[in-house]
Amino acid sequence: MRSPDPARTLAAQLADAVPGQHVVLEGHVHRRRELAKVSFLILRDRTGLAQVVLRPDEIPAEGIPTEETVVRIVGVVAANAQAPGGVEVVSPVIEMLSEPARTPIVELWRPSLDATLPTLLDHAAVTWRHPAQRAKWELTAASLRGFRRTLDAAGFTEIHTPKIVDTITESGANVFPVDYFGKTAYLAQSPQFYKQQLVGVFERVYEVGPVFRAEPHDTVRHLAEYRSLDVEFGFIRDHRDVLAQLGEVLGGMLDSICSEGAGALDLLDVALPAIPEEIPVVHFRDALRIVGAPDDEPDLAPAHERALGDWARERYGSDVLAVEGYPMRKRPFYTHPQPDDERWSNSFDLLFRGLELVTGGQRLHRHSDYVSAIEARGESPSAYAAYLDAFAHGMPPHGGFAIGLERWVARLLEASNIREVTLFPRDLHRLTP
Amino acid sequence: MRSPDPARTLAAQLADAVPGQHVVLEGHVHRRRELAKVSFLILRDRTGLAQVVLRPDEIPAEGIPTEETVVRIVGVVAANAQAPGGVEVVSPVIEMLSEPARTPIVELWRPSLDATLPTLLDHAAVTWRHPAQRAKWELTAASLRGFRRTLDAAGFTEIHTPKIVDTITESGANVFPVDYFGKTAYLAQSPQFYKQQLVGVFERVYEVGPVFRAEPHDTVRHLAEYRSLDVEFGFIRDHRDVLAQLGEVLGGMLDSICSEGAGALDLLDVALPAIPEEIPVVHFRDALRIVGAPDDEPDLAPAHERALGDWARERYGSDVLAVEGYPMRKRPFYTHPQPDDERWSNSFDLLFRGLELVTGGQRLHRHSDYVSAIEARGESPSAYAAYLDAFAHGMPPHGGFAIGLERWVARLLEASNIREVTLFPRDLHRLTP
Repeated sequence: MRSPDPARTLAAQLADAVPGQHVVLEGHVHRRRELAKVSFLILRDRTGLAQVVLRPDEIPAEGIPTEETVVRIVGVVAANAQAPGGVEVVSPVIEMLSEPARTPIVELWRPSLDATLPTLLDHAAVTWRHPAQRAKWELTAASLRGFRRTLDAAGFTEIHTPKIVDTITESGANVFPVDYFGKTAYLAQSPQFYKQQLVGVFERVYEVGPVFRAEPHDTVRHLAEYRSLDVEFGFIRDHRDVLAQLGEVLGGMLDSICSEGAGALDLLDVALPAIPEEIPVVHFRDALRIVGAPDDEPDLAPAHERALGDWARERYGSDVLAVEGYPMRKRPFYTHPQPDDERWSNSFDLLFRGLELVTGGQRLHRHSDYVSAIEARGESPSAYAAYLDAFAHGMPPHGGFAIGLERWVARLLEASNIREVTLFPRDLHRLTP
Repeated sequence: MRSPDPARTLAAQLADAVPGQHVVLEGHVHRRRELAKVSFLILRDRTGLAQVVLRPDEIPAEGIPTEETVVRIVGVVAANAQAPGGVEVVSPVIEMLSEPARTPIVELWRPSLDATLPTLLDHAAVTWRHPAQRAKWELTAASLRGFRRTLDAAGFTEIHTPKIVDTITESGANVFPVDYFGKTAYLAQSPQFYKQQLVGVFERVYEVGPVFRAEPHDTVRHLAEYRSLDVEFGFIRDHRDVLAQLGEVLGGMLDSICSEGAGALDLLDVALPAIPEEIPVVHFRDALRIVGAPDDEPDLAPAHERALGDWARERYGSDVLAVEGYPMRKRPFYTHPQPDDERWSNSFDLLFRGLELVTGGQRLHRHSDYVSAIEARGESPSAYAAYLDAFAHGMPPHGGFAIGLERWVARLLEASNIREVTLFPRDLHRLTP
């Protein structure tokens, strides 16, 4: 079989090359500096940067290609303590693989990008090439690997469930209608109903996929399409088992980030969060007292969440805090009540650095409880027939959670806007690129 | 921290239990058999089946719970050479975790399901519980792990790209419109444009995600929503490098299936496909001759594909065959032509057991080539402005492929209908469950 990378040396492999060795480098021209006596070309490939040195007689007739031109360079390895990795490439012969590039809208070679967020987003295909931008997504990819690795090891099965659905899962307000062969369908707001049904099949399931929310407000923490890391599993005692599994998963994501994203963490100067093995928990009722809100407040406002984040940091040295027991009347119908006081629920939100990152909890599992809960909200169980079928045929006590992937990375990097860590964000105003 | 599975023994762990040991089992009642002298309850959990034996005085007053009821059983391990794994559980105390189940529409305890496909699909939440159904999806999940593992090891970065888009990628005919905050948007037919742009960022990328095709025909091999395993990477010589990478990926998927899906393979009696390390290749021109089609035929009909599948089996002992060089006029505008004869393309389809499974190839990479190709089709490059931005700023020679996940498993299992291996299929007539 043909080797996919014939004779190519990656930038990160240069440090191991022997001085005098011939190498082939391929990548983008990251930076060129033409000086009187010597010129430099910094090459960027998927593993990093490599320094190429040109004597005046080695410069091509048409000059060193402009930044972002794609080149193939054959040269000789030379030791140079000043060069990145202690090695550079001399006596280069440069071949252009694509025509000289148009001048980028931003100077990608600068250590940090001097551009507004709209500029970054409008030119995403180019601005993500900046090493600091790219590093953000590398942490996202490492998080995904840690998420899956943790759950695979715990006997979970990966599932994929439909994104075009005929019923509205979460609320009627923020749903996108789809013209489905002339009928009206909807984009799934979450895989909630499907992941629960599949607990009856696989007992432990997870899904990584897009979810869609027609958020009518333009905020720094909402997207119209985002990636939800969904987990659901059976044979739990209550929501505290769900929270324990969430702790394992977040720990696994952090482990991957540290082991596979070390370079990106350095480049971005990330302060790693403190996520204790046992996540601290506070009851919603007590959370209201801590932030000085009235006893009958039905939900936590963003300012409350921030205050609780500070409190958890001071009290437990923790960047995460679970608030359990949210009032039943604010939770979806499938939420399991707190057994000793049914005003409260066996559900939780996880605050990460003072912002809601995860919603989770125990669900109802008895068919009769579903019928009552749906009727109590003035709806008809027949509208949920396919979903309820699973419960009519025996379902274990179960629960689960959903992590917003972009939110996780945004808070990890303390980004001021979730769009900074999203490759091609979708929102009220943005449908392209 | 609380242990998530307190004291629970899984069915697969019973074989290692010591006779006389007390165990806690949890799962669904898979089968009950009440005989005069002794009764049996077969318990099903995520790892398999366990046999529980009840003496007449051990049967609960209300009888043994019906099939699919969820139970917790405390009992004692006993050796019995007749039992699965040589071990059974005696002296059981049964606790019902959910109310007795409604009688399932199918008898899940029978070795094979005696039900029509519409019945299986209409009651998917229950019918997927059958061990043979479940095994199909276990092979899907194993395939996904093998796909990612192979690409992670080869330096690829996982990406996630928007599923709501403003332009139509593949063709105007089979697209689903979305009402996007009052504007018309579309569901992505493929991540093609995005994965190419991101080759400029990460050099090697992959995505596992839903794609949407408003297929107006009801066939056994098309779905309106399916999972596409997309790969794209830079610094290739031509489409043959793409094909070599595809071979690695398919090999990795098969490896995972064999190592992690051994039980499922056995249960389903799967004949493993022969996928040679070097995938055999035939040019489109020669493929027409082999199947006896006219020289000017622009595409391969399903009957041609089947004939080529047979030919590859006989000639190479291979279940896969790559047909390269498809006529340019039948390929999308971003396709790279064959350098020595521009009527043909540097693209391929991979036939798996005589059915198209993968489309791939080399793409154009020069900005000027894109402008010409788009204009030659009578379109305006300005309609592709965001996409073309990447090429205006230097893109390496690149290519990639897309594998249809459900099609892969359907052909692996020689299923007669792709819906047999899809958890909750979507098609012209099916939007629920």
